[in-house]
Amino acid sequence: MTVLYVVTTGGTIEKAYSEQQGVVANLDSKIDRYLRLLRLPDSDVRVVPLMNIDSLEMTDSDRARILETVKGLLPEKAPILITHGTDTMVETGLYLQRALPKLEVPIVMTGAMAPLGFEGSDALQNLTESLLALRILQPGIYVVSHNQVFPISNVRKDRTLGQFVKIKEN
Amino acid sequence: MTVLYVVTTGGTIEKAYSEQQGVVANLDSKIDRYLRLLRLPDSDVRVVPLMNIDSLEMTDSDRARILETVKGLLPEKAPILITHGTDTMVETGLYLQRALPKLEVPIVMTGAMAPLGFEGSDALQNLTESLLALRILQPGIYVVSHNQVFPISNVRKDRTLGQFVKIKEN
Amino acid sequence: MTVLYVVTTGGTIEKAYSEQQGVVANLDSKIDRYLRLLRLPDSDVRVVPLMNIDSLEMTDSDRARILETVKGLLPEKAPILITHGTDTMVETGLYLQRALPKLEVPIVMTGAMAPLGFEGSDALQNLTESLLALRILQPGIYVVSHNQVFPISNVRKDRTLGQFVKIKEN
Amino acid sequence: MTVLYVVTTGGTIEKAYSEQQGVVANLDSKIDRYLRLLRLPDSDVRVVPLMNIDSLEMTDSDRARILETVKGLLPEKAPILITHGTDTMVETGLYLQRALPKLEVPIVMTGAMAPLGFEGSDALQNLTESLLALRILQPGIYVVSHNQVFPISNVRKDRTLGQFVKIKEN
Repeated sequence: MTVLYVVTTGGTIEKAYSEQQGVVANLDSKIDRYLRLLRLPDSDVRVVPLMNIDSLEMTDSDRARILETVKGLLPEKAPILITHGTDTMVETGLYLQRALPKLEVPIVMTGAMAPLGFEGSDALQNLTESLLALRILQPGIYVVSHNQVFPISNVRKDRTLGQFVKIKEN
Repeated sequence: MTVLYVVTTGGTIEKAYSEQQGVVANLDSKIDRYLRLLRLPDSDVRVVPLMNIDSLEMTDSDRARILETVKGLLPEKAPILITHGTDTMVETGLYLQRALPKLEVPIVMTGAMAPLGFEGSDALQNLTESLLALRILQPGIYVVSHNQVFPISNVRKDRTLGQFVKIKEN
Repeated sequence: MTVLYVVTTGGTIEKAYSEQQGVVANLDSKIDRYLRLLRLPDSDVRVVPLMNIDSLEMTDSDRARILETVKGLLPEKAPILITHGTDTMVETGLYLQRALPKLEVPIVMTGAMAPLGFEGSDALQNLTESLLALRILQPGIYVVSHNQVFPISNVRKDRTLGQFVKIKEN
Repeated sequence: MTVLYVVTTGGTIEKAYSEQQGVVANLDSKIDRYLRLLRLPDSDVRVVPLMNIDSLEMTDSDRARILETVKGLLPEKAPILITHGTDTMVETGLYLQRALPKLEVPIVMTGAMAPLGFEGSDALQNLTESLLALRILQPGIYVVSHNQVFPISNVRKDRTLGQFVKIKEN
């Protein structure tokens, strides 16, 4: 069994519809429920629910907490998935990269344009891709989404397209 | 084939998630897409997309338009389903009842606590129940939801429970 | 709360895919799991898992057991849904009608062309419709399927169309 | 845009339920329909529907056709996914490896224990994982399934577990 960590920080991927208020918001962590839809016989997935916020509201202090959590996990030498809002995912990823120059495992960041469980959502696709990416990527920090893998230093969100794109062609 | 009309006015049942704005709103009519998931070999379902608004924003003028539309359909002697936001569904139903004292067909009103296509939604259940109710109810105006049929004069929305309830036991 | 009985006898509606054998068969009762997808706040649904067989293999003895079960429930004066394979559903229904001439509640029979949980299945639709029909139909025995309600004395399965049809126009 | 080929050969992943016959069988190719559920903005996925058979019925001649098809695609230097029944997937993979010793792209084989669109199926998970694997694996032939990547020379199907396992620990 391969240990894989999933640190959840919120973002659209974990948003839910509140019937009382008629809005979509970060309420309870729901990654666990969707992980159970996947067959992971050789993967010991350990979910660490860290925070559940819209990434536009993420503060420096929140990012510091993510970094501390990752630092605490690194000695286990297990790959780490961070679920995160897409709007500031790259900012958090670059912050982690500056603080963690020498990684021995891959750290993958993913999120979604539509919440888990909503019609037409990309969330379960991104989660599935990211878990597979954890198994085969070299050490480093990446964004995985929509069948693409981006090194964190060469990716930005294109809000108009609703997807991540390379900053420059390599 | 039995003709059945479906007059859509919006409400939560038709809300969709806007990826650009991160909100749930009445965007495009989506009833058609979900009706195609049902097998209706003996039912000629004709959708009349009248408006697509939150029922808390529904004005007297909007209700007058619904009444005019229903009046225009009544000569066809076909049952009519009206999809509607739950918050003011009963108000609209009572307004129709006052204006249409002698019906020859059933008019069923339904809606949902969560939009069509959202995890755990009651929307397709209510739509399925309402279409069946159109086939067997006596003339009159009803709310159909959550496996219950309420005459319009004996129903109110219980916001805390998130469901319709009888006003008085009969 | 209204008590509703659901007597399950098998048929396609309850078939499941066996991964070990690569076939679709009546394995375990699965109605319960799908009932939990529905919101039934005023319905006390009591499932009676009687047998789980293909209705082409149903014997006189099996039908006698169904009859005995229904007879045992009738004193409770609660509507009864019988889930059943479509191939001999009408035969069983007519057998019940001969034995139970004076009913005080509706007995609805339903089934499906494709199992619960299979893409494009009609099973949850038929289950949803049937539960609603139990709430409003007059006493008698009926087949409910595909947004249609058939008195048991005027229905047959059309195998080519894959649906129930009236024997004669009324 | 990255070109990715998907050569379909049948197997459980593409099986469908026949309502007329009540069996699960390889009827029409259905990969296309499920690929449309995925967001693949940077992937030009080209489906090559080669055959649609149970892999237990696959003959030497069928394997020769798969090899010829792959050989025909290799000059395009695009990764290739082969969907295939799980029972003889490894046999076909080893056959391809013997015939194609020097690859410049990854060839991924996948399948499923339950068909696309059946409740609890692993098919869309395996398809999603495999497409991601095509983007990052080194040249070679692999089986990708259930969040695992196996070089073709170190994998066998464990029928009791219903999954692929390594032959030997590395």
